[in-house]
Amino acid sequence: MLRRRFTGNIIVAMDRTARTFHASGVVTLTTDFGLKDPFVGIMKGVMKRHCLDIGVIDLCHEVPPFRGEIAGLWIGLSYRWFPEGTVHVAVVDPGVGTDRGIVCIQSEHHLFLAPDNGLAGELVSHLDGWTAWLLDLTTLDLQISTATFHGRDIFAPVAAMLASGKLVPQALGSPTHDLVASALPRPAFEASSFAGEILFADRFGNLSTNIPGPLPESWQGASVGVDGQALRLVRTYDDARPGEAVGIFNSFGLLEIALPRASARKRSGWGPGTPIRVSKSR
Amino acid sequence: MLRRRFTGNIIVAMDRTARTFHASGVVTLTTDFGLKDPFVGIMKGVMKRHCLDIGVIDLCHEVPPFRGEIAGLWIGLSYRWFPEGTVHVAVVDPGVGTDRGIVCIQSEHHLFLAPDNGLAGELVSHLDGWTAWLLDLTTLDLQISTATFHGRDIFAPVAAMLASGKLVPQALGSPTHDLVASALPRPAFEASSFAGEILFADRFGNLSTNIPGPLPESWQGASVGVDGQALRLVRTYDDARPGEAVGIFNSFGLLEIALPRASARKRSGWGPGTPIRVSKSR
Amino acid sequence: MLRRRFTGNIIVAMDRTARTFHASGVVTLTTDFGLKDPFVGIMKGVMKRHCLDIGVIDLCHEVPPFRGEIAGLWIGLSYRWFPEGTVHVAVVDPGVGTDRGIVCIQSEHHLFLAPDNGLAGELVSHLDGWTAWLLDLTTLDLQISTATFHGRDIFAPVAAMLASGKLVPQALGSPTHDLVASALPRPAFEASSFAGEILFADRFGNLSTNIPGPLPESWQGASVGVDGQALRLVRTYDDARPGEAVGIFNSFGLLEIALPRASARKRSGWGPGTPIRVSKSR
Repeated sequence: MLRRRFTGNIIVAMDRTARTFHASGVVTLTTDFGLKDPFVGIMKGVMKRHCLDIGVIDLCHEVPPFRGEIAGLWIGLSYRWFPEGTVHVAVVDPGVGTDRGIVCIQSEHHLFLAPDNGLAGELVSHLDGWTAWLLDLTTLDLQISTATFHGRDIFAPVAAMLASGKLVPQALGSPTHDLVASALPRPAFEASSFAGEILFADRFGNLSTNIPGPLPESWQGASVGVDGQALRLVRTYDDARPGEAVGIFNSFGLLEIALPRASARKRSGWGPGTPIRVSKSR
Repeated sequence: MLRRRFTGNIIVAMDRTARTFHASGVVTLTTDFGLKDPFVGIMKGVMKRHCLDIGVIDLCHEVPPFRGEIAGLWIGLSYRWFPEGTVHVAVVDPGVGTDRGIVCIQSEHHLFLAPDNGLAGELVSHLDGWTAWLLDLTTLDLQISTATFHGRDIFAPVAAMLASGKLVPQALGSPTHDLVASALPRPAFEASSFAGEILFADRFGNLSTNIPGPLPESWQGASVGVDGQALRLVRTYDDARPGEAVGIFNSFGLLEIALPRASARKRSGWGPGTPIRVSKSR
Repeated sequence: MLRRRFTGNIIVAMDRTARTFHASGVVTLTTDFGLKDPFVGIMKGVMKRHCLDIGVIDLCHEVPPFRGEIAGLWIGLSYRWFPEGTVHVAVVDPGVGTDRGIVCIQSEHHLFLAPDNGLAGELVSHLDGWTAWLLDLTTLDLQISTATFHGRDIFAPVAAMLASGKLVPQALGSPTHDLVASALPRPAFEASSFAGEILFADRFGNLSTNIPGPLPESWQGASVGVDGQALRLVRTYDDARPGEAVGIFNSFGLLEIALPRASARKRSGWGPGTPIRVSKSR
């Protein structure tokens, strides 16, 4: 993984995060733990031990195992819908117990706690400005009982202290501007087309790409090229004809490929990595 | 889908719902979103933004995709177990972004918010009386940013305002008595038998039918006919002999087909649509 | 199932549980209900009906169907991470509606409510001391409407009354020391090896065994024998070489078999019941 300096953002970050963080008591949790094991429940227990008034909202626990960047993407696209003063915790952490860092990021009135393994790097690419601190575990008063579950031993107690206002991010460690960069592919913008690829399928089999909308006004009538086909861009799922695969800008503002009331994933064979091109009509 | 007037209920409805709704701050959520994506978490975030004191309970997010009637059935069979003053939100909404209506229904001390696509029609068939209002989106102060996620942009903020007492259902729009009827099959009652079918399998592989209990006293010793077999009706799962498929009236009051400590779904090959007949013994 | 007297623990139990239980309002839920049906949501509704201030945390609802001992194991390994004053509810209950007992157990500052079918027996093997009461349903004021869902009709209302301080465990019935013993296999400790077996796979495909850690200091360099292979014992998942199956003491303190960033379950073919032996190096 490459380290990339996000220096372009820093001045904005300083400016925006000069605003104080007022803890709302809300924590969101995003992990690749799934729900078949007690891991998520235990993290909530640890937070409640610290403060009974904390309210935890599950954002998603079905991040594909070890794909931290996907977690960073989802949090980056979702956090604005939560109350100001929320602490967003992400644990997709295959390097747990090694010396990979853990960072706390502040942007506007939200805090984020994440491992520095590409997850945080992806996340900050969705923020308008941010400040980050690298956790110094030697100065925090934590009981780390094993090397395999920092969600329970580090993330949960630190999040609880932040969310209850007992701790400020400045007290966690030193500021950092270096974050491990995300490995997610970026779309390429050209004069008359945008080139990207499918990132993941949702529960309905809709295929989300990395191409953000909205398109410029002058692109009215653009089409979506995939696998040699040209798909129409529509506004609602019901605008598609029965059996017709279409492009649609979804609720995250990303282009997705969908089939009306059916799974584009299953019917098309397209999936993560399939190239997508949006072309301006002539 | 046919529109059906539920005129038979209206007088009762007026009477019952004359009682004021006292918001308890509790919201239940029923969707076909599943839990692998951040959709449910985002809806909770929006509600918390409106009011931090709202408590959201997941009723079920694994409604079979696009099967609104199943959501209506489950809410209709479940809502009585929740506190008075609860707002029950259902989002199974393949027509999102089209002109399908959204309705708020009041029955006794509960509110329901659902798309008018058969879901609401199924739901009200389980209520003793009800009043409904059709949401007028032009008068509600909502920011609808996309045409694909009204769960986030309409259902969540309206539910939050109802659950926190900031809005009364009368303020949402005009009363309506017309609801799109449910497409769920209805059981047929004859002199000495009830004919129905299997609706869905639960997690254990128990097969729930659309035949409600309890049977009349005089039907003691009735048997359940399925696929040419006659099954015994028993009271508890452990009353079945090892490997014996039985009929049992489940916790929703519906007849189900079960195998003791095993999946009737997997063992029998029976599933949604399989005809079932309960016959009085002679 | 055999009944076993846990007489060895009783004096300790009396001593520890002399401490009064101060309800925190927190309830944990562990079931084999899964999340595809409304069962878990309904239990939460019933608890909220009793007391709006109760906060319910899902520990796990994907206990393998009917495997109560696995629920007992998970709760026994997890409860310490929850606030004192928590009521831990477990419903894995194939004998629902029969005369199997339901017990309330107190240990230190936690309460547990579980069917006496091996689940409670497994659970208490993880407690330092405990007192148990057998629920007398004839004296409790409960509305038991069906014989198939005691989670809703008994466990939820009793848990709510305990968690809100309206009921003390002593009021539930008579003390009992006899619990149905767990059928989970126990590890065998020998002079220079520990023999156990794999109990379950977690979401990542890591294979948890019944062999508890930590190993004595003098066992440094011990190896893990499985299926004719000798695996290294490592401290973090990232200590394994690509593709190398290793042994690791996991966050529950149990030995598990893991593959770095991959599923040991899928790659190895090992699973529940596979024998494991930890051998001291010579």
